[in-house]
Amino acid sequence: MPRVSFFPDEKIVEVQVGENLLRAAMVAEVYINAPCAGEGTCGRCKVIVNKGEVETRATDKLTPEEKKEGYVLACLASVKSDLEVSIPRETRLGRPPELREKTPRAGRLLTALDWRNIWSGLQIDPRFKKLFLELTPPTLDDHLADLQRLNRELKRKHNLQVTQIDFEVLKSLSNILREADWKVTATILAEDNTAKITQVELGDATQEHYAVAIDVGTTTVVAELIDLGRGEPVARTSAYNSQVSCGADVISRMVYSAKPDGLRTLQELVIKTVDGLVEGLVKKAGIKPHLISHAVAAGNTIMLHFLFGLDPRRIREAPYIPVSTKFPWVKAKELGVKSIPYAYLSGYPCVASYVGGDVVAGVLASKMSEKDSLSLFIDIGTNGEIVLGNSDWLISAATSAGPAFEGGGVKFGMRAARGAIESVRIDSDTKEPIILTIGGAKPLGICGSGLVDTLAELFLSGIIDQKGKLNLDLKTPRLRKGTDGPEYVLAWAEDVATQKDIAITQVDLDNLIRAKAAIFAGIKLLSENTGVSLADIEEVYIAGAFGNYLEVEKVMTIGLLPEIPPEKFIFVGNGSLLGAYLATISSDVAKEAQDLAEKMTYLELSMDHNFMNEYISALFLPHTHMEMFPSVVEGLKTRSK
Amino acid sequence: MPRVSFFPDEKIVEVQVGENLLRAAMVAEVYINAPCAGEGTCGRCKVIVNKGEVETRATDKLTPEEKKEGYVLACLASVKSDLEVSIPRETRLGRPPELREKTPRAGRLLTALDWRNIWSGLQIDPRFKKLFLELTPPTLDDHLADLQRLNRELKRKHNLQVTQIDFEVLKSLSNILREADWKVTATILAEDNTAKITQVELGDATQEHYAVAIDVGTTTVVAELIDLGRGEPVARTSAYNSQVSCGADVISRMVYSAKPDGLRTLQELVIKTVDGLVEGLVKKAGIKPHLISHAVAAGNTIMLHFLFGLDPRRIREAPYIPVSTKFPWVKAKELGVKSIPYAYLSGYPCVASYVGGDVVAGVLASKMSEKDSLSLFIDIGTNGEIVLGNSDWLISAATSAGPAFEGGGVKFGMRAARGAIESVRIDSDTKEPIILTIGGAKPLGICGSGLVDTLAELFLSGIIDQKGKLNLDLKTPRLRKGTDGPEYVLAWAEDVATQKDIAITQVDLDNLIRAKAAIFAGIKLLSENTGVSLADIEEVYIAGAFGNYLEVEKVMTIGLLPEIPPEKFIFVGNGSLLGAYLATISSDVAKEAQDLAEKMTYLELSMDHNFMNEYISALFLPHTHMEMFPSVVEGLKTRSK
Repeated sequence: MPRVSFFPDEKIVEVQVGENLLRAAMVAEVYINAPCAGEGTCGRCKVIVNKGEVETRATDKLTPEEKKEGYVLACLASVKSDLEVSIPRETRLGRPPELREKTPRAGRLLTALDWRNIWSGLQIDPRFKKLFLELTPPTLDDHLADLQRLNRELKRKHNLQVTQIDFEVLKSLSNILREADWKVTATILAEDNTAKITQVELGDATQEHYAVAIDVGTTTVVAELIDLGRGEPVARTSAYNSQVSCGADVISRMVYSAKPDGLRTLQELVIKTVDGLVEGLVKKAGIKPHLISHAVAAGNTIMLHFLFGLDPRRIREAPYIPVSTKFPWVKAKELGVKSIPYAYLSGYPCVASYVGGDVVAGVLASKMSEKDSLSLFIDIGTNGEIVLGNSDWLISAATSAGPAFEGGGVKFGMRAARGAIESVRIDSDTKEPIILTIGGAKPLGICGSGLVDTLAELFLSGIIDQKGKLNLDLKTPRLRKGTDGPEYVLAWAEDVATQKDIAITQVDLDNLIRAKAAIFAGIKLLSENTGVSLADIEEVYIAGAFGNYLEVEKVMTIGLLPEIPPEKFIFVGNGSLLGAYLATISSDVAKEAQDLAEKMTYLELSMDHNFMNEYISALFLPHTHMEMFPSVVEGLKTRSK
Repeated sequence: MPRVSFFPDEKIVEVQVGENLLRAAMVAEVYINAPCAGEGTCGRCKVIVNKGEVETRATDKLTPEEKKEGYVLACLASVKSDLEVSIPRETRLGRPPELREKTPRAGRLLTALDWRNIWSGLQIDPRFKKLFLELTPPTLDDHLADLQRLNRELKRKHNLQVTQIDFEVLKSLSNILREADWKVTATILAEDNTAKITQVELGDATQEHYAVAIDVGTTTVVAELIDLGRGEPVARTSAYNSQVSCGADVISRMVYSAKPDGLRTLQELVIKTVDGLVEGLVKKAGIKPHLISHAVAAGNTIMLHFLFGLDPRRIREAPYIPVSTKFPWVKAKELGVKSIPYAYLSGYPCVASYVGGDVVAGVLASKMSEKDSLSLFIDIGTNGEIVLGNSDWLISAATSAGPAFEGGGVKFGMRAARGAIESVRIDSDTKEPIILTIGGAKPLGICGSGLVDTLAELFLSGIIDQKGKLNLDLKTPRLRKGTDGPEYVLAWAEDVATQKDIAITQVDLDNLIRAKAAIFAGIKLLSENTGVSLADIEEVYIAGAFGNYLEVEKVMTIGLLPEIPPEKFIFVGNGSLLGAYLATISSDVAKEAQDLAEKMTYLELSMDHNFMNEYISALFLPHTHMEMFPSVVEGLKTRSK
């Protein structure tokens, strides 16, 4: 029997000829990341066959270069002889299922190329600058001290009045200057009327300069390595936020942070996640970590508080005040991000407790604040942040919609991962559903877009009424009283991966309606407070990965968003990361982000009487005032024919 | 027999009625600081008799308040009954013998009152400012974050654009603001176009604000607590620099710093000394340590390098370059000075490797840089720093005189402490000396002023020739060949505390002459390089505690200083500490110190051909060119009559 040796694990296993290589690894207890469970669809289980023969099926998940280097997908390879197999590091890491990009059925998804065009005029001018300096060596006549000599040259050549220096850099300055024979590259942070030296490198190192853009999401943290020479991202990686062990959403994490040592634990967890990602980026790109001068983290206000170890307790109680909406440059190492020894880290400016740096970053990236026409920006997550405005003004609010559309508070709710029901249609006559799952796998639960579809289709097919109540009088086995009250069965146990019926309950439906009502009421209130008509909205920006999967028509069917022509919808993807990236490559953008955060007004909805009225009106499908949704009314007529 | 209980030691001892209380403590092994060995002259052995009766002699070393509180000097008290005795902390500390102030025989010693007059116009305006702020509490409508709310008020009320905040202060900001009911005092460091919040206190704390001025001497570290409200020093304390265990002078400490862990050790030692002193000041003044906003350390360039953990290795080798001649504000706690949690520490700006912040501080305090007339500033220590100039220009040099006048390289040399021979006269006929010791105690060695006297008197009495060579042909038992070669006995064993003859050897004399020659040559070279005549010098400032004891005429007799009328001499005492103090109370002075350090040119003597010529000419008593010392020549004539 062939022997398969795995490196660097140094584990050996004997298998039958023809055995699947992924299975061989499992038998050998070698961990390989294979989220698609061996179907060859995710392309994650890349391994390198150094010695021996395998037979493998064709795949487009490997580049020609990778194929040349001996890469195969373990799940598609079968063993033909003794093998020596290396497991690359990225294959060994358990990473979250990345949300696939797909073209929405309506509206426009902005691709990387689109973004490049949108921001094409942007000059690369990072806040941290690398400057090459040739100092004259000291003599008895020119005996200026090392630091003052460096500063003299910075003044002379770059007209920079440097007043600060990283203390650790000062400590090693004398050795570096001499080792470099007085030819060095200084990294300078020039901001707020000061200039600070953050690193001094040997020789001319100006051509190698990197930054990291980070989106610190409540669930997922994404990091991107930016080549500041070209102004381009060169690597991206993501991981679950390790804080999930302390609660799924920001509210439960704030509760956790009030426990003894809670805040410290939460900070350590998110820092660990960030540190791991940055380390991964460095390895992936094959660069030296000291080449990274800075990192910019975007995220909601609470996540950024955790990142910097600031106590968010006042955010939970009225009048909901953060410690700060701006975040200082802190040495990453001092926060615990040890993988980048010279880098400084800052956070994106926030507007208020519930409109954070992720929203500011997204709004900035969208350029809605540069347009004369009216735009609406929405990030549908736990808080449903909304921004309305144009180049003159911007108003924002957070709706505390709750996590229903992220699957929270929904019995079979789940994240958009393999096996999640993402599309639903229900036959109006038979009341039988058609479901589609991510990856075409056996269903496991229902993700956000599936929930929107389910709610819309139940309504369109007359299974629920305008209040969202299930009509148990209908003759279908799918409608029944379950352990949690009335429910509609979307998938029967025999078709389900867990062999249990997947149903949507009355409680789920009520939660979803409350969530959509909150978001709609928020939008309505912003428009009323600013005296603009929703009909004047020229562009609707949907942020967050969740957004990409939404079917715009269904969203309007349930009255989550006002009726706006689908072609006006623009899916911006991870606007938070994009905004963070832009702030790493451009001082102007960073300044603009600051201005934007200050300029954007924030409307606190939670205590607003009008908001409560709007909310109650929106607790119907699509809305108490049906005249606001003429297309939905039209659709209902069509269906009932 | 009466029982004496000592607290907090909790040691009990039985003694005879009438026993001396200091002796009782010694028997009980309770440590009491009594440098005068029980004569009642130093006033250090203060203890508090809580219970019982003592008989004590009158003393002026105790204030009426102290007497009322039960303080006695242990050395003057005898036991009459059972006693309970508390040992105050300051009495328990071993502290260095403070150099007594005494009026010099010629010239002027500047007293505290003199200094007050000299600097009378100075406005109290410290770099760290405490500002009281009444913030409007946040509401749903005014929901600005805590930090931005604080900054808004600083801008509104004080027109301060704050851009930085101590990260630890930020972390506790939210709690303090609320605990203080939004009435707080912010401490702000405004400098170099930035404003940084370094502390936020409850309520109006503007009236309680302190700083620490520190003179980091190679041998002794002195610290002074400054009340920034009144602009006055309120407590002073001193200790030996713990670094003495790593070498007596800066050169040997630099050698030590090159050993593995040497630099770290030296930094830790001096920081420990400073921390102990600051802790002592806080206790002495009975203030809360957080009231101290900052500390300013003056010292020579090498001491300041050690304080900040900067490697001085390039200072030792040509072209003698320090890491930096300016020192950043560093949080004292981060350097290891843990006793003042919110204070920032900085160092006095230096001129060059061997003209440090202590000289800049002294020159600044003397105001010689504000006078149109020519002044000479001298600090006679290991390096013999010299500054010559006026309001237009200042030139400085260090002479590497060596530590001879501090007692280094002299067989019986010692610091100016009890038992040190401080004055010497030698009868020209009998060649017999008259000696005076500090404290009138049995002689132990010879201190600086004693060495100057000895050299001068040996010369005047014809025991040594112009080259400083002992004339062994003279008939006196005091001249002999000792184990170290020819020597002159100043004190016979029977009169000496150690019961060994105290002599000055030929080697000692050679060292002293080399030292005085270096200083004189340095002065001469500075005058020649600037084209001024020494006769034009209007004021001579002698810095350093050593200076106070010098007899100006003797100094000229040996040609250490040029002949200048004695009334032009001004003894400035600890100019380093004074300059540090001034920089704590005045932003303008701090700025001036910076300007002064930059303005002062530095002449490197060590490789200067002219310096070597001048040095060789000065290796005679008083000088090869006797015409430069007409008064000395006159004196010689008088003696030989």
